[in-house]
Amino acid sequence: MDGGISAIKTENSGDEFLKEALVILMQDAVQKGTDRGHKVCEWMEPEKLHEILDLKLQRNGESQEVLLGYCRDIVRFSVKTGHPRFFNQLFSGLDRHALTGRILSETLNTSQYTYEVAPVFVLMEEEVLTTLRHYVGWTAGDGIFCPGGSISNMYAINVARFHRFPHAKEKGLSALPRMTIFTTHESHYSVRKGAAFLGIGTDNIILVQTNDRGKMLPEDLEKKIEKSKSEGAVPFLVSATCGTTVLGAFDPIADIADVCERHGLWLHADAAFGGSALLSSKHRHLLHGIERANSVTWNPHKMLGVGLQCSAFLLPDTTGLLQRCHAANATYLFQTDKFYDLKYDTGDKSIQCGRRVDCLKLWLMWKALGSQGLEKRVDKALEQTRYLVEEMKAREGFCLIMEPEFVNLCFWYVPPSLRDQQDSPDYWQRLGKVAPVIKERMIKKGSMMVGYQPHGDRVNFFRQVLVNPALTKTDLDFFLDEIELLAEDL
Amino acid sequence: MDGGISAIKTENSGDEFLKEALVILMQDAVQKGTDRGHKVCEWMEPEKLHEILDLKLQRNGESQEVLLGYCRDIVRFSVKTGHPRFFNQLFSGLDRHALTGRILSETLNTSQYTYEVAPVFVLMEEEVLTTLRHYVGWTAGDGIFCPGGSISNMYAINVARFHRFPHAKEKGLSALPRMTIFTTHESHYSVRKGAAFLGIGTDNIILVQTNDRGKMLPEDLEKKIEKSKSEGAVPFLVSATCGTTVLGAFDPIADIADVCERHGLWLHADAAFGGSALLSSKHRHLLHGIERANSVTWNPHKMLGVGLQCSAFLLPDTTGLLQRCHAANATYLFQTDKFYDLKYDTGDKSIQCGRRVDCLKLWLMWKALGSQGLEKRVDKALEQTRYLVEEMKAREGFCLIMEPEFVNLCFWYVPPSLRDQQDSPDYWQRLGKVAPVIKERMIKKGSMMVGYQPHGDRVNFFRQVLVNPALTKTDLDFFLDEIELLAEDL
Ligand SMILES: Cc1ncc(COP(=O)(O)O)c(C=O)c1O
Ligand SMILES: Cc1ncc(COP(=O)(O)O)c(C=O)c1O
Repeated sequence: MDGGISAIKTENSGDEFLKEALVILMQDAVQKGTDRGHKVCEWMEPEKLHEILDLKLQRNGESQEVLLGYCRDIVRFSVKTGHPRFFNQLFSGLDRHALTGRILSETLNTSQYTYEVAPVFVLMEEEVLTTLRHYVGWTAGDGIFCPGGSISNMYAINVARFHRFPHAKEKGLSALPRMTIFTTHESHYSVRKGAAFLGIGTDNIILVQTNDRGKMLPEDLEKKIEKSKSEGAVPFLVSATCGTTVLGAFDPIADIADVCERHGLWLHADAAFGGSALLSSKHRHLLHGIERANSVTWNPHKMLGVGLQCSAFLLPDTTGLLQRCHAANATYLFQTDKFYDLKYDTGDKSIQCGRRVDCLKLWLMWKALGSQGLEKRVDKALEQTRYLVEEMKAREGFCLIMEPEFVNLCFWYVPPSLRDQQDSPDYWQRLGKVAPVIKERMIKKGSMMVGYQPHGDRVNFFRQVLVNPALTKTDLDFFLDEIELLAEDL
Repeated sequence: MDGGISAIKTENSGDEFLKEALVILMQDAVQKGTDRGHKVCEWMEPEKLHEILDLKLQRNGESQEVLLGYCRDIVRFSVKTGHPRFFNQLFSGLDRHALTGRILSETLNTSQYTYEVAPVFVLMEEEVLTTLRHYVGWTAGDGIFCPGGSISNMYAINVARFHRFPHAKEKGLSALPRMTIFTTHESHYSVRKGAAFLGIGTDNIILVQTNDRGKMLPEDLEKKIEKSKSEGAVPFLVSATCGTTVLGAFDPIADIADVCERHGLWLHADAAFGGSALLSSKHRHLLHGIERANSVTWNPHKMLGVGLQCSAFLLPDTTGLLQRCHAANATYLFQTDKFYDLKYDTGDKSIQCGRRVDCLKLWLMWKALGSQGLEKRVDKALEQTRYLVEEMKAREGFCLIMEPEFVNLCFWYVPPSLRDQQDSPDYWQRLGKVAPVIKERMIKKGSMMVGYQPHGDRVNFFRQVLVNPALTKTDLDFFLDEIELLAEDL
């Protein structure tokens, strides 16, 4: 590449700055940020960090030197989500191809509404959505990338409602009967946010019982639907989850689809997290029946590590439902007398106007790895989860909440002083205080990050998520050793 | 910078690829993409482009060479929105500091929900929002970055509704009276999309009359509110616009605020486009009274050219309304037993879960230019608009729709064959066909891009938007010459 970036002649100081910033980025954020020899985070109290960073915006601009210093500090004090010891969210890792796609999108900075301003990306989005639909099991359909899975789930509510009551769009809900949504306590909180935002009301979410693994019970679903009808409401939507946020549970989609068909309800599958298992011939059975859903949310920014944000809302519909549901036909953008086929102006399917290009990063990574490479990543993540389970069983103090079905590994760590104390009356209360202390210690040390939460009637436990493709066995052993180390005096 | 990027030792092929891709990016997208010697777009029919790009995703991965070829093609066939001849949307230009901020955000790839995973950006967002509020005229308040102005406007609807009927969140709209929203025909279509999405219904948007410059008439607003009340509805929100999408009109906020106060309505100011005028002491009078609004949408990704997406939803409220309206209190993310002050976990104010970092690009650009530099850009854009107006008046064929108030310059171009034909019965019909032809020609030639639209009872006219800070007088003259040239045989 004859000399690379540094050989590029720059004609303005902005380009010079950009070049120098790219060096900081490559060295500090990309390389050190994924290097086990460096910390995953550098903890600083908010007040102190505020001081150090000199965040205040002023009347005068700063010199390039000062600005580069800011860039270094921003990287330094940011959490390295690409680091192999970052287990804190449902995403982790820094895929270089996806990153290239992201940087390219940012540089080209266009909006995904019309073919006119986003020719490449209109076609690319369609290609990527077609491929994702293929893995769901649909040979045709529709879809769109949304700003996150929460909003994709909201699209599901809106499309389902429009499907049931097309007049809802014009008349609003005050003209309609009370409508109810069915989901479980394990489902993502965006179903609640969506019900509130869309005017359905959170009281009109009816929680269906789950089994002890957090999976929806179809019999209870049917009962609750009937009960809701008998109370004069109109049940219209079941939001089932494929890979729940905490436990990684998969609702039995096929059985739920039977119930939905019997009662004429829209079935939405929130596969934001679990959807990526569809890429594995070995594990796609987890989502058995998903092709019977009326819509699917799938976030490649989670398990596939494509980078925030990348969330597909998919549906098998071929009648233009999505467009009819959301279209506003603004003439300043979607002129009807253009010189090319208007079917390529897809932006009116969205609730947004300007819409970022979220497809390129996934497309480029997919081109680099092939579906085969993606499948391997999924398989590896599940194998590593098995490995960790076995190691936990072999060590004292690690107590699994349940055998994991997916890559969420939920466990209590029982520190030395609490072992064999289950019968003591304050055991659970004391155990619940362990995870926050370990968490605080790991963050202050910067050695790793993993999430914890109370859940239902269970006190705080850790949720380890294995999605970073850079993970090795050594990282997993490190994880266990480090928990033991951090808690040895507890 | 001892050797720059090319001197960085790379340990894996991914880093090598990234480095080489960055070179393509700097040369093709950044430098050529903003160079007047290169085209603003390279038109290709969708079917043909599809073939050339080899978009299909396959089982096997591709070599780095092939992947770099894709990157080159993607840049080649993408519209250069940073180019000084790109006038097609409400954004244009490629600020290198903002771009650096965007690339940094993408590399750090974190989500803006908790201090734990986004320490720098939680503090930075607050600082940026505080500064934006300062320019609105508020010394305290609340706010959040949203995925675009459309969604910010939807936040306004939801917060206003919650403020009026706190039970709406739980009970939903079927338990409430019919609620009405007031706006003008000139307002952005996101108000319609929002009314549909949030369950209000588009029929419950009441259009207030405008004067001949597209500004809302407060007297008509008052009349319509009273009428709506008398029909049994509950008027709750006025969505006024500061800088309308097509005409660039500013609704008279102060007078509208009087009406809202008299009737107890929430006043939302959609300053997505016009908000940036607040930075100019010379032009901020356009938004006179905006500090009396209950909420404001302001998109720095439009006039300030920060890059998609950057949209702030701001409010003067200090009672935690935003949080109460949207919170779902998910315990897996917003644990209540953390070791730091929970006020820094701001994510539950949002309707999203994962939320991109949208503040850094604006922050870094602001640090580089200072508010002074931003003010100069705004002033320059308005001066250039004046220049273009005078030039148009001096040339034959350019017919202003009205004297512009802002940076939207709306005009018909009357080609030679149509001049002095106003009295011919098909004049308007024929004039309406001119803009699409000129547009097609400029795109196929790649010389420039500018938008057109029919609007109300006006046939197609061009909307020139002057926001690219790189624009020179020569670019403006080029714009006029090029229109003449493209239409000389019409
Ligand atoms: C099951 C599930 N659905 C939806 C979401 C929301 O996705 P996003 O963070 O992209 O809004 C999450 C996020 O964790 C999730 O776990
Ligand atoms: C006045 C106005 N409000 C809101 C919006 C929507 O902003 P966004 O494209 O970020 O959704 C626009 C977009 O053009 C606009 O012009």
